[in-house]
Amino acid sequence: MYAGPVQGLIDELGRLPGVGPKSAQRIAFHLLKLSKEDAQRLSAAINEVKERVSFCRRCFNVAEVAAEGDGDALCELCGDARRDATVVCVVEEPRDIVAVEKTQEFSGRYHVLQGAINPIEGVGPDQLRVRELLSRIEGEGITEVILCTNPNIEGEATAMYLARLLSPLGVKTTRIASGLPVGGDLEYADELTLGRALSGRREVEG
Amino acid sequence: MYAGPVQGLIDELGRLPGVGPKSAQRIAFHLLKLSKEDAQRLSAAINEVKERVSFCRRCFNVAEVAAEGDGDALCELCGDARRDATVVCVVEEPRDIVAVEKTQEFSGRYHVLQGAINPIEGVGPDQLRVRELLSRIEGEGITEVILCTNPNIEGEATAMYLARLLSPLGVKTTRIASGLPVGGDLEYADELTLGRALSGRREVEG
Repeated sequence: MYAGPVQGLIDELGRLPGVGPKSAQRIAFHLLKLSKEDAQRLSAAINEVKERVSFCRRCFNVAEVAAEGDGDALCELCGDARRDATVVCVVEEPRDIVAVEKTQEFSGRYHVLQGAINPIEGVGPDQLRVRELLSRIEGEGITEVILCTNPNIEGEATAMYLARLLSPLGVKTTRIASGLPVGGDLEYADELTLGRALSGRREVEG
Repeated sequence: MYAGPVQGLIDELGRLPGVGPKSAQRIAFHLLKLSKEDAQRLSAAINEVKERVSFCRRCFNVAEVAAEGDGDALCELCGDARRDATVVCVVEEPRDIVAVEKTQEFSGRYHVLQGAINPIEGVGPDQLRVRELLSRIEGEGITEVILCTNPNIEGEATAMYLARLLSPLGVKTTRIASGLPVGGDLEYADELTLGRALSGRREVEG
């Protein structure tokens, strides 16, 4: 429908997650109206990320590459010797690390699965960094694995799968608690969450 | 929160229309996971649009630039001598041209305002291509101007403003009809639309 390069851009934008044909069109025309410098800042940022950022060779968090073509990047957290290397928090995506770090409740290492088990989307353990987690447990003297995947169907299935896989290895495996959010309201909680909050109840010291 | 280039990309993506901080993060991680070639296809498409596409010097539709640095582009429609140059359809954005062309009901020329009057966003007639429209009417022998801005508050205000501006020029000024969409249901029409449909009623030949 549009002159060649415009349609080409709309097509490329439409491939991004969460960007439908209408938003792709909207973004394309926004870029058309921008000054050349402003638009090229975006394309340069894309190129820079692909040049300078890679995944940590140990935990698969995002990691800056020291030298071009360096496939051996180590992320900041794995490179920080002050962190407890015996506890590993297993998350689905690098952004989950940011969420856990904000709590300031955890000072161990991480392992990013790069997804969760989802048979409908064709994602099984082989598509995730499960093998790499097992070899870390064997090689790094890890004593506790915290399963910190999302509390939804895919995340729970992944946690269950990993728990079963890790139990013969003699490593302590824990799962983050499900329950009512702090500041939440009993009245508005769904049954599943309230049920989890009940079954996960803990003794209070008087 | 992230290694430098990743945050830089998230910031740039967050400036796009309709892309909030969460989607910017999601798109950035999607780009991180893509192969270098696939990600660079997007950045190349952005650069190509900025190099090769500009706005038509006459109607401000998108237009391919013949030679680099050519600021004198003419769009396909303005370059097509078979189109009726005496009727101009005024639209807000280039995408509206695509919508009108699909109807195959119009074979005249276009004029893209590049927006609509919106005082809240600070868009007045001076931010739109109104002056250029007036000089076209004087210079091109235009006899009818069809006001084809959106039937919402901003589009209506823009149409009203242009109608008042054009009336002393002796050019016929028309507005596209508002009414029930074809295939629509009287029961589900809002009062405003139904009211417009009534006041815009036309005699039927028996």
